[in-house]
Amino acid sequence: MGSVHVQTMSKQYEVRIDTGLRHQVGALLKELLQPVSSVLIVTDSNVAPFYLKDVIQSFDESAVVYDYVIESGEASKSFSVYEQLLTKALEVGLDRKSAVIALGGGVVGDLAGFVAATYMRGIRFVQMPTTLLAHDSSVGGKVAINHRLGKNMVGSFHQPEAVLYDTDCLMSLPEEEWKSGFAEVIKHGFIRDEAFLKQLEKEWTSFKTISVERLNDMLARSISVKADVVSEDEQEHGIRAHLNFGHTLGHAIEAQLGYGKITHGEAVAIGMLFALRLSEEMLNVNFHIEQYENWFLQLGYRTKIPASLNRERLLQTMSKDKKVEAGTIRMVLLKRLGEATIVNIPPEKIRVLLDERMEGAHG
Amino acid sequence: MGSVHVQTMSKQYEVRIDTGLRHQVGALLKELLQPVSSVLIVTDSNVAPFYLKDVIQSFDESAVVYDYVIESGEASKSFSVYEQLLTKALEVGLDRKSAVIALGGGVVGDLAGFVAATYMRGIRFVQMPTTLLAHDSSVGGKVAINHRLGKNMVGSFHQPEAVLYDTDCLMSLPEEEWKSGFAEVIKHGFIRDEAFLKQLEKEWTSFKTISVERLNDMLARSISVKADVVSEDEQEHGIRAHLNFGHTLGHAIEAQLGYGKITHGEAVAIGMLFALRLSEEMLNVNFHIEQYENWFLQLGYRTKIPASLNRERLLQTMSKDKKVEAGTIRMVLLKRLGEATIVNIPPEKIRVLLDERMEGAHG
Ligand SMILES: NC(=O)c1ccc[n+]([C@@H]2O[C@H](COP(=O)([O-])OP(=O)(O)OC[C@H]3O[C@@H](n4cnc5c(N)ncnc54)[C@H](O)[C@@H]3O)[C@@H](O)[C@H]2O)c1
Ligand SMILES: NC(=O)c1ccc[n+]([C@@H]2O[C@H](COP(=O)([O-])OP(=O)(O)OC[C@H]3O[C@@H](n4cnc5c(N)ncnc54)[C@H](O)[C@@H]3O)[C@@H](O)[C@H]2O)c1
Ligand SMILES: [Zn+2]
Ligand SMILES: [Zn+2]
Repeated sequence: MGSVHVQTMSKQYEVRIDTGLRHQVGALLKELLQPVSSVLIVTDSNVAPFYLKDVIQSFDESAVVYDYVIESGEASKSFSVYEQLLTKALEVGLDRKSAVIALGGGVVGDLAGFVAATYMRGIRFVQMPTTLLAHDSSVGGKVAINHRLGKNMVGSFHQPEAVLYDTDCLMSLPEEEWKSGFAEVIKHGFIRDEAFLKQLEKEWTSFKTISVERLNDMLARSISVKADVVSEDEQEHGIRAHLNFGHTLGHAIEAQLGYGKITHGEAVAIGMLFALRLSEEMLNVNFHIEQYENWFLQLGYRTKIPASLNRERLLQTMSKDKKVEAGTIRMVLLKRLGEATIVNIPPEKIRVLLDERMEGAHG
Repeated sequence: MGSVHVQTMSKQYEVRIDTGLRHQVGALLKELLQPVSSVLIVTDSNVAPFYLKDVIQSFDESAVVYDYVIESGEASKSFSVYEQLLTKALEVGLDRKSAVIALGGGVVGDLAGFVAATYMRGIRFVQMPTTLLAHDSSVGGKVAINHRLGKNMVGSFHQPEAVLYDTDCLMSLPEEEWKSGFAEVIKHGFIRDEAFLKQLEKEWTSFKTISVERLNDMLARSISVKADVVSEDEQEHGIRAHLNFGHTLGHAIEAQLGYGKITHGEAVAIGMLFALRLSEEMLNVNFHIEQYENWFLQLGYRTKIPASLNRERLLQTMSKDKKVEAGTIRMVLLKRLGEATIVNIPPEKIRVLLDERMEGAHG
């Protein structure tokens, strides 16, 4: 069993990583949340059939436990589902001593977390991540819903009381979702932990043959990186921005392909390789990118920008500004493996490398 | 000109109280918010015709200033208006360096504050109260919208960067609203500042003949009480609950009459007299309530519970519990003038005094 401690200005909490935790939730929360008047478990339509019953049954008879199952998918991070959840909370009578449990991936965590952040001006919540990606999203307290004009545009910072990561749950996760989450693991190596990165390269060449020990170790280490960054900078005034490594292009690819057409992590993987190349150009370093590209390919990632995408529109999204030429684009680059930095980059530099990293281009 | 300093765990800020401040907003914010990329002024349909233009014109040409006018009234503290405001913010492109200005009463402040609290996980905001009641609501960082199942059920704690109180604006305020806001002023005297209470009794026998100096002094002192309480207990874990003096019965009266049928302050005034009587019964003190009752009548308040209301339903709402008999009701009482305390009261005690304080009862 692993455990990572998170210490922010506003709260400190444990991330527990172990198999079978879902059977112990009731007992664990009895300790962690005393007193708790009632809990509302929020989960989604894919996760509920597998694990909801186990979590409910982990509470003893005296506990007051409600649940609410949302449709799986990004579309549930909406105003209307947010409002539905608040209505549910009011109908069952959650009060200031109640808690919300988010049982699911990043969608459930972000949505249920925002409900907890704003119900009666904030009640406690507990993250129970069930995807690999959620090892990242469940730690750090960023919660949000989407607006049609932008993803994660409405939200708060609201740290959980605890993160209970039952790694059994990952066994039912589709390969696609392993790939998506693992990109964030690699990211944590790139930006802050070179030794971890090397270890990942050696040990993780497939998602099919993983021992539970290795998985739990990997998660503890990856979460430690996230926890460190968040501890230093809870509200993203500085270093927390390093977590955006690979995300400037990654987000642009997701947005232009249309959300759901490519997983978040796969887009980030393409973005990280791009950022490595850009680091070479801007910071006078050599990362032997072919080696990472081969590893990514072995794990099943796409490594180039889909040919259907338009360079100028990507640039537009990356710059977040209508007048691209006017300014520079701020991106997270690597000074060396394990050390990130933020650099302002002229659009012309980016154009050249976008061309280079397009599918079908010579590179 | 008056000024009160507010110091909470999460932020410190000034409340400035002066005539004509609306003409200086642009200049003041240039100092307070540097850098600010753009501002969105939120106001309501009653306030806009009087003061919006002045505020807009106070900014110099280089400033990026947007505005949004909501319908006046409590009904605007809704999910749909909240979403409309977020849409506006996204459409005009507010970013993390933007700020929201709430120009209005408590409705505008609570709503615009919640927008600021959750737009991009929180941007800065500035309160410009234009009602007397908002001397209370604009300080302390409580922001919220309503749900059909309960008032202020969805919200956050989000402290403003500054409160700019242009007391000129109170000149257009209807007498009804003076009365409503002044009840909170009296409350601040009762719970924490006996000398202030005595001064109010002496100086305030009508809302028609007030000098600007007296008004500004009174506001500074009343806001100081609020600021002290909030500084000690930002998130209402303890002493902040004292601000609910008069509100347990007050809220029940509002809810049962239907919101808008009686002003908040007038309901609180009835609630305060009730709480004084209950303090006498429970805490072995004598407050000479007739004297306060006469003062309240002179100022135009109702002092008794409207006869149309049902005692058992009031008790129900006050107890926030379906099984009234099971428990006691927690209320803020006074040990002496200027000193509040929280007491658990058996429902039977409350019944007797509710009867006594009903319109038409002998008392
Ligand atoms: N808050 C943060 O800091 C942060 C960070 C990164 C991403 N995010 C957010 O996270 C979301 C993406 O998270 P995600 O990738 O976990 O998405 P997700 O929650 O949609 O999960 C992916 C898919 O896997 C299914 N699933 C979840 N657990 C499963 C299990 N154990 N077995 C089988 N299927 C399972 C889900 O139903 C869904 O279909 C995005 O909305 C993103 O904005 C937030
Ligand atoms: N956040 C807090 O700590 C807190 C505390 C107390 C009350 N509140 C909230 O405050 C709200 C009530 O505030 P309120 O009494 O200011 O209500 P309000 O904002 O509705 O204002 C009362 C009326 O006066 C009008 N008005 C405002 N300024 C005016 C002016 N200068 N001239 C003429 N008309 C003017 C408004 O349009 C409205 O019709 C409630 O929603 C309540 O929940 C919040
Ligand atoms: Zn990511
Ligand atoms: Zn009040």
